[in-house]
Amino acid sequence: MDVVLTGDRPTGKLHIGHYVGSLRKRVEIQGQFDESFIMIADTQALTDHALTPQKVRENVLEVMLDYLAVGLKPDLNRFFIQSLVPELAELTMYYMNFVTLSRLMRNPTVKSEMQQKGYGQQIPAGFLCYPVSQAADITAFKANLIPVGDDQLPMIEQTNEIVRRINHHFDKAVLCECKPLLSKVQRLPGIDGKGKMSKSLGNAIFLSDSNDEIRKKVMQMYTDPKHIRVEDPGHVEGNVVFMYLDAFDPQVDEVEVLKEDYRRGGLGDVVIKKRLIQVLVDIITPIREERLRLEKNKQELLSLLKDGSVYARHIAADTLKQVRDVLEINY
Amino acid sequence: MDVVLTGDRPTGKLHIGHYVGSLRKRVEIQGQFDESFIMIADTQALTDHALTPQKVRENVLEVMLDYLAVGLKPDLNRFFIQSLVPELAELTMYYMNFVTLSRLMRNPTVKSEMQQKGYGQQIPAGFLCYPVSQAADITAFKANLIPVGDDQLPMIEQTNEIVRRINHHFDKAVLCECKPLLSKVQRLPGIDGKGKMSKSLGNAIFLSDSNDEIRKKVMQMYTDPKHIRVEDPGHVEGNVVFMYLDAFDPQVDEVEVLKEDYRRGGLGDVVIKKRLIQVLVDIITPIREERLRLEKNKQELLSLLKDGSVYARHIAADTLKQVRDVLEINY
Repeated sequence: MDVVLTGDRPTGKLHIGHYVGSLRKRVEIQGQFDESFIMIADTQALTDHALTPQKVRENVLEVMLDYLAVGLKPDLNRFFIQSLVPELAELTMYYMNFVTLSRLMRNPTVKSEMQQKGYGQQIPAGFLCYPVSQAADITAFKANLIPVGDDQLPMIEQTNEIVRRINHHFDKAVLCECKPLLSKVQRLPGIDGKGKMSKSLGNAIFLSDSNDEIRKKVMQMYTDPKHIRVEDPGHVEGNVVFMYLDAFDPQVDEVEVLKEDYRRGGLGDVVIKKRLIQVLVDIITPIREERLRLEKNKQELLSLLKDGSVYARHIAADTLKQVRDVLEINY
Repeated sequence: MDVVLTGDRPTGKLHIGHYVGSLRKRVEIQGQFDESFIMIADTQALTDHALTPQKVRENVLEVMLDYLAVGLKPDLNRFFIQSLVPELAELTMYYMNFVTLSRLMRNPTVKSEMQQKGYGQQIPAGFLCYPVSQAADITAFKANLIPVGDDQLPMIEQTNEIVRRINHHFDKAVLCECKPLLSKVQRLPGIDGKGKMSKSLGNAIFLSDSNDEIRKKVMQMYTDPKHIRVEDPGHVEGNVVFMYLDAFDPQVDEVEVLKEDYRRGGLGDVVIKKRLIQVLVDIITPIREERLRLEKNKQELLSLLKDGSVYARHIAADTLKQVRDVLEINY
């Protein structure tokens, strides 16, 4: 039995970085496994947004819109909201007894986020412990395949450590180990070329952007600062427009020719930007239109999420029962 | 409305240290407040007993037996089992977002237990976070009066910090602050005089001990190592027998006379030990007998705890709803 779990923190609408990094892959693999859960991780989002919960709340349905609009099908995936499965909180509490402080501090993802956000020791306890909560999410649904980029491998490791510790200590297959479903995913930089695309950095192109917004954002995109006149030779590496063409343009051969021309000199930024605009408009237009159509019935989206959450609770309760059994909390 | 919350970790039967330190007080005040919750904190006990859960499980009913045997009345107190109120786990998860790692590390109780147990950074995350879980326990039941010794004041402080942070940030009286119900409680040392009485140190006299066990334990009690012959002057300070007489002997005046005699010389250890044995036998015999009577119907005790837990869930769910409301997780 192969069970896949994926999800996103609802802290903003999804953008083409999410699309190329994970959504496209999820659409591609949907229906190939016995079960697929897609979680909107509101509880996890609160670990660093507890003071601005409205931001999380607003984006739950935005993310759901993005999911359906890119082609994730409700009959092939169980969509649910993390906070509507309270069994996950309970599992997290129990797992926290099997993970030490020093182990959490060694987690590379937590470590870099502690630096990035400037938390240091002022890190909220909930944020520090979120890898344990991820282990609860994964194991609750007996998910054995987790589509991730390699920057998320520490999550898989932490989960399997907890699984092995519990199974080994109680000499019983209480929990399932999981494996990464790795894909060669290029991280898409933001339009400023400065780091990865993110809403908070203001360098993202959203799946909900209008053609006009797409056009504006591509036109201000970072290319090669030394490529001033059309006839100058230009750099393709580090040039955001070419990175996006590599990620999205279906005509790979044509892009290779353009790269040659650009390197040699004689190809202007405007030409490649116009091409990219067309490529992105072709991809985003149907998504945005589907989004607009779905947006008219938000109540239906919420029902879908609530139904999925009821189903998810049912599975999570079963895992919780097994964990409570070995911990002898079964009065 | 005055609501009292107390409880114990079920990691062993209760002993006369618990009796003099808290149980006696709880019996004395029962019925004086609008509501009194008494929690058997199995989830909290698991934070440092996750690898030996059977020890926790076994002692849930032992502690309940002790409660009823000392005279805590089911019609004046709501007894419940912590793990049967999963709302507490959820509240803990949310509160963890309002407490930093450095705040947890500064908690004097956690700090000293980290040292005592030799954890250092290897402290289980669950144990590190148990003050947050205590805040969940207290606030869930809107408990405003917490009977504690002064070593437990940090628990009250941590709870009120979370309460104030949430109420202030969301500008709403979501949670109730609590106050300590301080009592002048002497910490009873173990019979070896080496530290506080505890099951794990093997220096405890239990509320379930037979007269013979009481006799043996008192006879090996630490007195004054320099008081070798009866006629030698002896020390009363640090002398465990006198500390116990101070704590338990109702004839305060007679004890004062004995102290004089002991200091002057001419009073043997055996005399004061025999007196203490009688005093303890008088206190423990009715408790032990009530315990034996109650033990015959463990199923009834469990029912009592389950009923109490259902009631407790009802109250905790209301608090959880209010917290979820301000965190906007109310789909």
